[in-house]
Amino acid sequence: MTTTDGHINGHSVRKLNFGAGPAQLPYELLENVKDEFLNYHGAGANIMELSHRSSTFAKVIQDAEQDIREILSIPESYAVLFLQGGATAQFSAIPLHFLNLKPSQTADYLVTGYWSEKAAKEAEKFGKVNWVVPKGSKYQGVPAEASWKLSADPSYFYYCANETIHGIEVDDIPAIIPKDVPIVCDMSSNFLTRPFDITKFSVVFASAQKNFGISGVVLVIIRKDLVEKNTNKSIPLILEYKIQIDNGSMYNTPPTFAIYIASKMFAWIKQQGGLKAINEGADKKSSLVYQTIEQSNGFYVNFVEKKYRSRTNIPFRIVTNGVPDEKLETLFIKEAIQSNMIELKGHRAVGGIRVSLYNGISVKEATQLVNFMRTFQTNNS
Amino acid sequence: MTTTDGHINGHSVRKLNFGAGPAQLPYELLENVKDEFLNYHGAGANIMELSHRSSTFAKVIQDAEQDIREILSIPESYAVLFLQGGATAQFSAIPLHFLNLKPSQTADYLVTGYWSEKAAKEAEKFGKVNWVVPKGSKYQGVPAEASWKLSADPSYFYYCANETIHGIEVDDIPAIIPKDVPIVCDMSSNFLTRPFDITKFSVVFASAQKNFGISGVVLVIIRKDLVEKNTNKSIPLILEYKIQIDNGSMYNTPPTFAIYIASKMFAWIKQQGGLKAINEGADKKSSLVYQTIEQSNGFYVNFVEKKYRSRTNIPFRIVTNGVPDEKLETLFIKEAIQSNMIELKGHRAVGGIRVSLYNGISVKEATQLVNFMRTFQTNNS
Repeated sequence: MTTTDGHINGHSVRKLNFGAGPAQLPYELLENVKDEFLNYHGAGANIMELSHRSSTFAKVIQDAEQDIREILSIPESYAVLFLQGGATAQFSAIPLHFLNLKPSQTADYLVTGYWSEKAAKEAEKFGKVNWVVPKGSKYQGVPAEASWKLSADPSYFYYCANETIHGIEVDDIPAIIPKDVPIVCDMSSNFLTRPFDITKFSVVFASAQKNFGISGVVLVIIRKDLVEKNTNKSIPLILEYKIQIDNGSMYNTPPTFAIYIASKMFAWIKQQGGLKAINEGADKKSSLVYQTIEQSNGFYVNFVEKKYRSRTNIPFRIVTNGVPDEKLETLFIKEAIQSNMIELKGHRAVGGIRVSLYNGISVKEATQLVNFMRTFQTNNS
Repeated sequence: MTTTDGHINGHSVRKLNFGAGPAQLPYELLENVKDEFLNYHGAGANIMELSHRSSTFAKVIQDAEQDIREILSIPESYAVLFLQGGATAQFSAIPLHFLNLKPSQTADYLVTGYWSEKAAKEAEKFGKVNWVVPKGSKYQGVPAEASWKLSADPSYFYYCANETIHGIEVDDIPAIIPKDVPIVCDMSSNFLTRPFDITKFSVVFASAQKNFGISGVVLVIIRKDLVEKNTNKSIPLILEYKIQIDNGSMYNTPPTFAIYIASKMFAWIKQQGGLKAINEGADKKSSLVYQTIEQSNGFYVNFVEKKYRSRTNIPFRIVTNGVPDEKLETLFIKEAIQSNMIELKGHRAVGGIRVSLYNGISVKEATQLVNFMRTFQTNNS
C-alpha cells in the first residue's frame, strides 16, 4: 500500500530531494498523474500521446493559462506563453526583441550572480549592455544602490530575482529604477514562491523545473504592446514572441507533457491557498534553515548579506577553527543520504552545502532537514 | 486487469491514434513507464524529479546515446544531441551555422512540401537560399531531377525526407547531388522507420513525437568537424551546436522526461529487431493502406506520385462522381471514432483523410484500419 507521503508497506522509498532542480513534485500530484497515465480523462491514451491540436490538450493548456492568470492576476494586456529552451532561450530572445526599444539602444543589466552574468554576456552578442554594478567575484549580496551606474534612458532594466548558486534573492524591483523603464526579470528559481505585481514588469520568465513542474517548458509573461514594437526581422522563429502569441504557444509542437505537469502544479498551488499560503510556507521553510544556521554558533555559516538571503536556495559552509571543513561537509552529505535526503552538495563554484527549498518541499520536510542538521552538529562539534 | 494491448477487464479503453503527432507509444512501453513512475530504479523519485546532473539521469542519456549510435551505426565523428525547440529551432540553427560554409554563401533547398518550404523561408532570414525547384502549390511529387537548378558549390543541400501534410517521402539522398556537398536532412517524420547511412549526411535532425517518443526533444546528429568550421559568433546560445556538444546536450537543463521516453523507444526498437524489422513493418503497414486505396476502384484516391508516396503519412480523399465527397469524409471520420480510431482528419491544407503510421502503430492496428476502410466502402458505394 502506498500512502500519500511515499511510504510503501510502511517503508519510505521516497527520497527527499533538496537539489537545485529539476526538483521534486508534490507526491499526491505524482500519484494523480500515475492514476491517469494509461487513460487521460477517458481519452484512451496518455496526454503526451495526443495531438497538441486535440480538444483534450487544448483544454489542458487553456486551463493552465487560466489558472496562472488567476494566481498572479495577469491582465489581458499580457500574453502568457509556454515555450521551450528554458531561461537560456530567453537570455537571447529578450535582447533580440528589446535591445533597440529606445534610442539609447542599451540595456541595463544588474548582475548579482551566475545567471544574470550569463544573461548579460549573451545580450552583449546582440548589442550594447550596461553593467549596472561591476562584475563580482564572490556574489554575497548586492552593492548599494547609490553605487549603481544606470543608463539615462535604457531600452530595459534586467535582473535575476534569485540566484541559485550564490543564494541571492532580490525580492522586488529595486526602488532606484524609474517607473517608465521596462523591467525584465528572470524569476526561474523563485517564481510562484511569493505574490508580486505583474503590472510592474514588462517581461517575467521562469523555467518550470524548480517551482512548478519539470524541465522542458519555460513560462513567459510579456506585455503585448512591447512585442508589437519589435522591429528586428532576423529573430530565429523559435525565439519570436509574436508568432507564439498569435498561435497560443503552438506555432510549433509544444512540450505537451511538461505543460500538463505545469497545469497540475498551478491547480495544486490554488489548492494550497494560492501564493499567500505558498509565501508563508516559503518563509517558514527558509526560516527553519537560517535559524538553524544562526543558532549553530558558527558551525554552519551562510555568507550572504541578510537582506538578500534567498528563500529557495541556501548555500552554507561547515566551519571548524574558522575555515570551511570539506571533510565534515562530505560527511554531512553522506549521512544526509543515509537519512534519505539527497542533492545537498553545493555548486562547485561555491562549494559546501546547498539546501534548495522549492514548492515541492513541505514544511515538514524542511523540519526533517533541520533536525538532521542539529543532530549532525551535536555529533560533530 | 490490464492486458498489453490496452484492454481493461475485457473492454478496450485504448484509442487507436492515426494522427500526425504527437503519436501513440507502444502500450507496453507506457505500462513500463507507469510501473516505475513513483520510484525510478530505486532512486526514490520519478526520473523527471531528479537533477540532470545526477548519476541516475546521466545513465539515461548515456544509454539513449549509446542505443541510437548502435541502431544507426553512428561513428564518433558525429555528435548526437538531444535538444529543445523541435525541428523549428533547427530551421534556424542550420543556416546560422552553415550558410557561409562555402564561398558561394548559398544553400540549396529542395522544397517538396510545407515543412521544407518553412525551412527555406527561415534560412532566407539569414542569407542566400537557392530554391532547387520552384515553390509548388499542390506538392504531389517531386519535379524530375533534370529540371533542378543546383548551385555550383553550395554551402549545403537541404531537404525534408518526409512531408507529413502532403504525404511525400524522399527515401534517399537524390542521386544528382555531388558527393562533396554537405547534406542536411529533416527526418522528423520518418526517422527510425528505415535504415540509412548516416555517413552520407552532414546533419540529420528529427523531433521525437512521431517515431521515437514525445514532444519536447529533437535529436540532432551532426558532423563534429563541420561545427568547428562555424564562424558566426552571434548565434543565440540555445541554438549553438558547439556548446551543446561540449556539454553533452546539458549546457542548459535538458528536457529530461522526454529524453527518458526516447531512451525507452530506442530500447524498444532494438527489441523489435532494429531498423530492419521496423522497416519491414513500415512496408507492411503502408502497403496495407495503399493497396486498400488502389483496390477501391477510385473510392479512395491518393494523389501522390507512386515513387514519392510516404510510408508514414498517407493523405487520401473519398471520391464520388469524380469529385472529393466531404460529406462522406466527415462520415468516415465519425464512424472511425465510433470504431475507436482517432485523428484521421486530413490537414486543412489538403483536406480529406490522413493516416499516419508511425512506429507506435502495429501491423495489427493498421490491419484494423484497412478492415474498417473496406467495410466503409462497402456500406457507402
